[in-house]
Amino acid sequence: MSLLIRNGRIVSAVDDYVADIYIAADTITIIGTELPMEADREIDAGGRLVIPGGIDPHTHFDLPFGKEGIVSADDFESGTRAAALGGTTTVIDFATQAIGSSTFEALEIWHRKAEGKCAIDYGFHMIVTDMPAARLEELDRLFHKEGITSFKMFMAYPGVLYSDDGAIFRTMRRAGELGGIVTMHAENGIAIDEIVKRAVAEGKRAPAWHARTRPAILEAEAVHRTIALGESAGSPVYIVHLSCAEALEEVVRARDRGAHAYAETCPQYLFLDDSRYDLPGFEGAKYVMTPVLRPKWHQEQLWRGLRMGDLQTTGTDHCPFFFEGQKTIGKDDFTRIPNGAPGVENRMSLLYQGGVVEGRISLNRFVEITSTAAAKLFGLFPRKGTIAVGSDADLVIWDPQRTETISVDNPATHHMNVDYNAYEGITVQGMAETVISRGQVIVEQGRYCGRAGQGEYLKRAAPELI
Amino acid sequence: MSLLIRNGRIVSAVDDYVADIYIAADTITIIGTELPMEADREIDAGGRLVIPGGIDPHTHFDLPFGKEGIVSADDFESGTRAAALGGTTTVIDFATQAIGSSTFEALEIWHRKAEGKCAIDYGFHMIVTDMPAARLEELDRLFHKEGITSFKMFMAYPGVLYSDDGAIFRTMRRAGELGGIVTMHAENGIAIDEIVKRAVAEGKRAPAWHARTRPAILEAEAVHRTIALGESAGSPVYIVHLSCAEALEEVVRARDRGAHAYAETCPQYLFLDDSRYDLPGFEGAKYVMTPVLRPKWHQEQLWRGLRMGDLQTTGTDHCPFFFEGQKTIGKDDFTRIPNGAPGVENRMSLLYQGGVVEGRISLNRFVEITSTAAAKLFGLFPRKGTIAVGSDADLVIWDPQRTETISVDNPATHHMNVDYNAYEGITVQGMAETVISRGQVIVEQGRYCGRAGQGEYLKRAAPELI
Amino acid sequence: MSLLIRNGRIVSAVDDYVADIYIAADTITIIGTELPMEADREIDAGGRLVIPGGIDPHTHFDLPFGKEGIVSADDFESGTRAAALGGTTTVIDFATQAIGSSTFEALEIWHRKAEGKCAIDYGFHMIVTDMPAARLEELDRLFHKEGITSFKMFMAYPGVLYSDDGAIFRTMRRAGELGGIVTMHAENGIAIDEIVKRAVAEGKRAPAWHARTRPAILEAEAVHRTIALGESAGSPVYIVHLSCAEALEEVVRARDRGAHAYAETCPQYLFLDDSRYDLPGFEGAKYVMTPVLRPKWHQEQLWRGLRMGDLQTTGTDHCPFFFEGQKTIGKDDFTRIPNGAPGVENRMSLLYQGGVVEGRISLNRFVEITSTAAAKLFGLFPRKGTIAVGSDADLVIWDPQRTETISVDNPATHHMNVDYNAYEGITVQGMAETVISRGQVIVEQGRYCGRAGQGEYLKRAAPELI
Amino acid sequence: MSLLIRNGRIVSAVDDYVADIYIAADTITIIGTELPMEADREIDAGGRLVIPGGIDPHTHFDLPFGKEGIVSADDFESGTRAAALGGTTTVIDFATQAIGSSTFEALEIWHRKAEGKCAIDYGFHMIVTDMPAARLEELDRLFHKEGITSFKMFMAYPGVLYSDDGAIFRTMRRAGELGGIVTMHAENGIAIDEIVKRAVAEGKRAPAWHARTRPAILEAEAVHRTIALGESAGSPVYIVHLSCAEALEEVVRARDRGAHAYAETCPQYLFLDDSRYDLPGFEGAKYVMTPVLRPKWHQEQLWRGLRMGDLQTTGTDHCPFFFEGQKTIGKDDFTRIPNGAPGVENRMSLLYQGGVVEGRISLNRFVEITSTAAAKLFGLFPRKGTIAVGSDADLVIWDPQRTETISVDNPATHHMNVDYNAYEGITVQGMAETVISRGQVIVEQGRYCGRAGQGEYLKRAAPELI
Repeated sequence: MSLLIRNGRIVSAVDDYVADIYIAADTITIIGTELPMEADREIDAGGRLVIPGGIDPHTHFDLPFGKEGIVSADDFESGTRAAALGGTTTVIDFATQAIGSSTFEALEIWHRKAEGKCAIDYGFHMIVTDMPAARLEELDRLFHKEGITSFKMFMAYPGVLYSDDGAIFRTMRRAGELGGIVTMHAENGIAIDEIVKRAVAEGKRAPAWHARTRPAILEAEAVHRTIALGESAGSPVYIVHLSCAEALEEVVRARDRGAHAYAETCPQYLFLDDSRYDLPGFEGAKYVMTPVLRPKWHQEQLWRGLRMGDLQTTGTDHCPFFFEGQKTIGKDDFTRIPNGAPGVENRMSLLYQGGVVEGRISLNRFVEITSTAAAKLFGLFPRKGTIAVGSDADLVIWDPQRTETISVDNPATHHMNVDYNAYEGITVQGMAETVISRGQVIVEQGRYCGRAGQGEYLKRAAPELI
Repeated sequence: MSLLIRNGRIVSAVDDYVADIYIAADTITIIGTELPMEADREIDAGGRLVIPGGIDPHTHFDLPFGKEGIVSADDFESGTRAAALGGTTTVIDFATQAIGSSTFEALEIWHRKAEGKCAIDYGFHMIVTDMPAARLEELDRLFHKEGITSFKMFMAYPGVLYSDDGAIFRTMRRAGELGGIVTMHAENGIAIDEIVKRAVAEGKRAPAWHARTRPAILEAEAVHRTIALGESAGSPVYIVHLSCAEALEEVVRARDRGAHAYAETCPQYLFLDDSRYDLPGFEGAKYVMTPVLRPKWHQEQLWRGLRMGDLQTTGTDHCPFFFEGQKTIGKDDFTRIPNGAPGVENRMSLLYQGGVVEGRISLNRFVEITSTAAAKLFGLFPRKGTIAVGSDADLVIWDPQRTETISVDNPATHHMNVDYNAYEGITVQGMAETVISRGQVIVEQGRYCGRAGQGEYLKRAAPELI
Repeated sequence: MSLLIRNGRIVSAVDDYVADIYIAADTITIIGTELPMEADREIDAGGRLVIPGGIDPHTHFDLPFGKEGIVSADDFESGTRAAALGGTTTVIDFATQAIGSSTFEALEIWHRKAEGKCAIDYGFHMIVTDMPAARLEELDRLFHKEGITSFKMFMAYPGVLYSDDGAIFRTMRRAGELGGIVTMHAENGIAIDEIVKRAVAEGKRAPAWHARTRPAILEAEAVHRTIALGESAGSPVYIVHLSCAEALEEVVRARDRGAHAYAETCPQYLFLDDSRYDLPGFEGAKYVMTPVLRPKWHQEQLWRGLRMGDLQTTGTDHCPFFFEGQKTIGKDDFTRIPNGAPGVENRMSLLYQGGVVEGRISLNRFVEITSTAAAKLFGLFPRKGTIAVGSDADLVIWDPQRTETISVDNPATHHMNVDYNAYEGITVQGMAETVISRGQVIVEQGRYCGRAGQGEYLKRAAPELI
Repeated sequence: MSLLIRNGRIVSAVDDYVADIYIAADTITIIGTELPMEADREIDAGGRLVIPGGIDPHTHFDLPFGKEGIVSADDFESGTRAAALGGTTTVIDFATQAIGSSTFEALEIWHRKAEGKCAIDYGFHMIVTDMPAARLEELDRLFHKEGITSFKMFMAYPGVLYSDDGAIFRTMRRAGELGGIVTMHAENGIAIDEIVKRAVAEGKRAPAWHARTRPAILEAEAVHRTIALGESAGSPVYIVHLSCAEALEEVVRARDRGAHAYAETCPQYLFLDDSRYDLPGFEGAKYVMTPVLRPKWHQEQLWRGLRMGDLQTTGTDHCPFFFEGQKTIGKDDFTRIPNGAPGVENRMSLLYQGGVVEGRISLNRFVEITSTAAAKLFGLFPRKGTIAVGSDADLVIWDPQRTETISVDNPATHHMNVDYNAYEGITVQGMAETVISRGQVIVEQGRYCGRAGQGEYLKRAAPELI
């Protein structure tokens, strides 16, 4: 099976030119002007961009939350399908070690969740919660055999996912020796818990108190600590879902002295702000996520970070819960509201709109922050993240003109399995038209035409430190 | 009993003039030119400086160390006497809460250690190790009744003195509400323990490994965290024994944005460096202290901090152990070497030499960093820390010319109860000649003439935030 | 003639205590509790503060402006009288070298302007406009013989007061060798002129364009350049009338690395903002000054600078012009509006209100920034700037409760010879009640009772680098 | 004429893969795996890298220097040939406006110097020395008609190339409006001249005094000023030949706040240090260049800047003078030594060695800093600076193993027309083997096989702001 994409404007993190792309089976084999080949299928991409398929390095499909037995609303089938429709062809989800158990068990559980369901290729980070010295060797096998080269840890959520600085240091030291990377949910959860306890004791139970009990300075603190631990343990570090200017400043300082510190931000922190928590009734619960939405002025700082390379990637932290029936569990107590919001489907369009259309970043940089940098940092490059001979044919034919208003009710923008869209009402220009995963067209004219199980598990290599 | 000091060059943190000082009982009552009064005793201070008695806000007399039943070598009698001989008229020592016990018990124990023994006035910081919510009210009584307005906590020494960020946050929040201050031993002890464990496992047991397992970056991390916790909890913070440029940089940044962050450094970090750990044999054990001595280039940075007001005070962390019999416990295992070194006697001369004689700081600033700032930050001002009408007559007549080489064998420089001097061989110009504590001459021509028990316990007021 | 001030709360830059002050002739000779002396006159200062008389290091009395033959509205008589009424007992004005002429001529001219007129003591900075190598020796005589130890230069006003970096470097090098200091009007006037030229060419003539043509970044640039030139030439530098956060940041950075960089701000930048330029009609002309008023958010940054010691002094840049008849010269062309505004009378009350009453700075720091620091930096200490034995009896008995609303029509707040007050309508708590200049009461219960010519010229010593 | 390069490891600023490249005439038309085409010539690049030809954005061929009638030793023929041999396929040289003359005259003169001589393609920056308002329109024609979109100015060399801040501001404002860029020799030449004058007056005439009279702080000052002027005038700025950590820090700060500030460094600042000026005899004259070589510790800071993207490009400032006969003019007076050194031939190997071989930067980043970034910033992309379909076939087949010791006597490393090599004795691994300029092989197995005049003048487009 071969495929020929004609006349597209091919954009990588560096290049920008018009040419044809010839795909044999799942791989790009030739790029050229007016290629003299024929193929089983030809697509005319004239007037369109051809970009590397998006990589979302931060999703939570089929994730159990809390003690109530609830699970995030998208599983690997609905979630990866929505991702594909939005122009994303790779996700990296998380397997979560249960405290006291082996990481291998976690991996097996997550393999079972994903197998046979995915529309696109996927990998796993391993969430390490518990890392006694005796278990450190598991990291070696994860790294060398299982294709897991990034280890996620939490400074937040004491008693649940939290690791203390000792476990973090041990994990970082081993990760560093292996050539891996440690990714961090950076918030000082121990201090936050003290603030939460007092708020609750004072009867402050509305969703807005979720935000008021998680100050930016305690995110910045944790970012600084992560970097310091990484530097002393000898491991590169990657901050997930960085949300605020104070936290960014810590990354900037570290990079200014040459530290191997990387960070991801998310569309929610670029487009939404803390005024959402003041919405009437229980509406604010839709935006209960961690870190929380910050005051509006932070947004331009984050865009600046993306533009200048201080933020390298964008993930969604996609972790939706139904407003009705799931979010409402916390109606009388914000601490019981499931944390998270949907986004995997809208990331590419949002970043194209806010970045390219509104003039904040270049087209090349758009590709870099939605795909290339994540591919490099998480060991998927050059298989993913670029348009080059030998790379997987994970491509998006992008219509730079098409304009839609994001809505849970707009079939062009919402296929996620959840009853609200966090970006409701935001108009975006730029949409995925055709999406190709390893040479297969899985989205055509905005309609999904792939099948569950087409996506394969990706064994990832060591991070390439950009 | 009255005392008249004639013709001294009086130097405070701001002023510098020649006048007479008249002292009635324990208080300065008149300062003037050619005072027409008579007094029970007159001292001619012509050609001498008259400065406020030094305040050492960081001593550890009679301190139990480790599980071996050993105790720091100076008790309150020998320690305060040595302090007085060096020109220090106030010390603030530490009462240590035992984990799980009341802070009141600790206070009682320390009162018993000090009562009737001190040559000079003294106060206590309370070391808080364990601060469940139920015990927070103890802080109120300490603050309002017991004259203890500063609470010391440790990010180092897990399992011993260490508090986690929750206990720290709770303590800071209450301290902030009271108008107090939290002082911090800022090193990430949890991470350091991981480094130490590996070193030990690899058979690295010599004293030098004490230094190699405590990197500067983990001090800087803890300083940053202390300040962030203080800002979010609403408490001013004070870093004790800051040792390195990286840690100082965190204080500078905080102050640049207006945070209530303060820091103390110590003579050991200004005069000694990590080459000491390479001394032959077990000699390096004399310098086993925490934080550790740093590379020499840090020293000028710390001096700069003192000059520009980024470092406010100087303490000694005086905590001597006999080289023979005490330090030697750790002969085969650096983790068992008692931590600490002597210094209370030499601080004033060292700072005068390195600061004033060598041209790094002004005479006024010398007074500020050895006395005034500590008096203000620890609620002793204006009773202590200045030369003004109404203040305690804690005065030092300082000979700015007298030069001595510090040595355990030089009776002019060493009265501390320990068999070595950390500054052995360093020549200093500027010595205390006559020392007056609340109007009593307790050192005369460099000889102690006071008596044990003359020093009183100081109930301290709220910090004055400078 | 002797004077005894009883029971005042004496506040210096460090101290704060209640005592009596005995003044023999013009000097403080005794300070004590319940002094047993008698004096020619006694003043009861119970319930009042006694503070060092204010020092305003930046006034322009009797200053010719532009080519129109106009002169600033206050001469040395009316100006120093207004200063005294506000609690200021020393001013440092400026003698201006004419381009191509000797600085000695300038000094003589200014001596003639001031002699026999001043209510309070005064000194001169020398404005250097033109400093060929051949003239550098003048600086030596100014420094050693004439008591002028600070040299002011302009990076603004090309063709008028502007010096190029060569003249600045030469002057700084010589000033540094002498032990003097160079003070700088730091704005890149060359670039500003380009902006102004275009605005004028485009017909933008209203007063608001004065502000819109002088961006903050060009003040920050000049501050950075001043410090760099000072560091390479070996001279301490002092930025006059620093107006904005960007400029402050340059001073902060320099001080963070230990540079001898100092800066003054003014009440106008702490209390007024650029919304004044949008006032209807020609009203904005009242606020035509350089640097210009900045957006409101800068104010808290400047207060932070004052609090933390990054800004050391406050001057007024007092340089009033009548709104009617003087400011109106520029009615149709903002470039012809005389630059400057009144302020010498209101500085102490404004800073007490904004600083002490509103809780931004301590009482000690209030004294430091209104008096002590200027005395030290400009070689007047300890004669001026403190309350100590041997110092000049320049004292203000300050009523910390009295409240007035500043107005050109309020006889308690406006004696300056100008038809408007820049602070009209601002209510201040804290007023000078009695003002004493070298032992003479010159203001009593808020009324001037001194006489012209009582103030003497001050030969200043070398700066004391704080 | 077609060319097929087989099996090379193709490396761009982002990509890295093995493929064949098909070149029709002067353009890359197809890239693919095992291409089924035939071509007029095939080259096997197995085991070699194929990288974009280097772009040196900073050369001075055939440059008149000083009043002595001397000219830089390489003309456009020998210079571009040496460049080609080193792996550089594009240079951007400088046309210099004579003060008071039109820039068009300058352009014509430089076109005449280059025409028919160049081995590789070339462009010109325009050096603006004199930019009265009346002449600003010349910039429009240069930009739109002549392909000159970058304007170089000097803060150094008063009376020769120096522009004052007014000329700079005017030029920047117009450049910004056009979409161009201003590049700057950033040193405060006015202040430096004062330092030089004194040194000369004191009889300090040896080459070392060239370095001692040009302190780093005066480079940093000028960098800061350039950026501030650019920000207020609305123009991106590019600092040429940045030499020291202090100057880099200013660029870093500007970029941290999102400013369009870019900078180039040079091999001499990465490999040589100021100890060269202490060489015996007149040897130091070989290193008389501006900015001067700095102490060794700066080098790692510059490498850090290159790695993290704070420095974007590397140029050589190639401007050689014969040691015998040219440098010697300044034998008795360092101010008469012609400024400059050779380097155009060795840049690629030096950066490969110091960057890739020694592990400081990645292979992709090596391509970016030697070629891609310059192509983008100077409007040559995508024609130059990458390996992509449609781009010029400017390619280097790079032998990553070949090792040579640079020497004026080593025919593999020195073809420049000058009697010394600044990097004499430095061993580099990684050499250009085959060099292709617009599809023509001009270097084969390290031997030049092109002809003079093959290189064409490049009309450059607007900068792409990376």
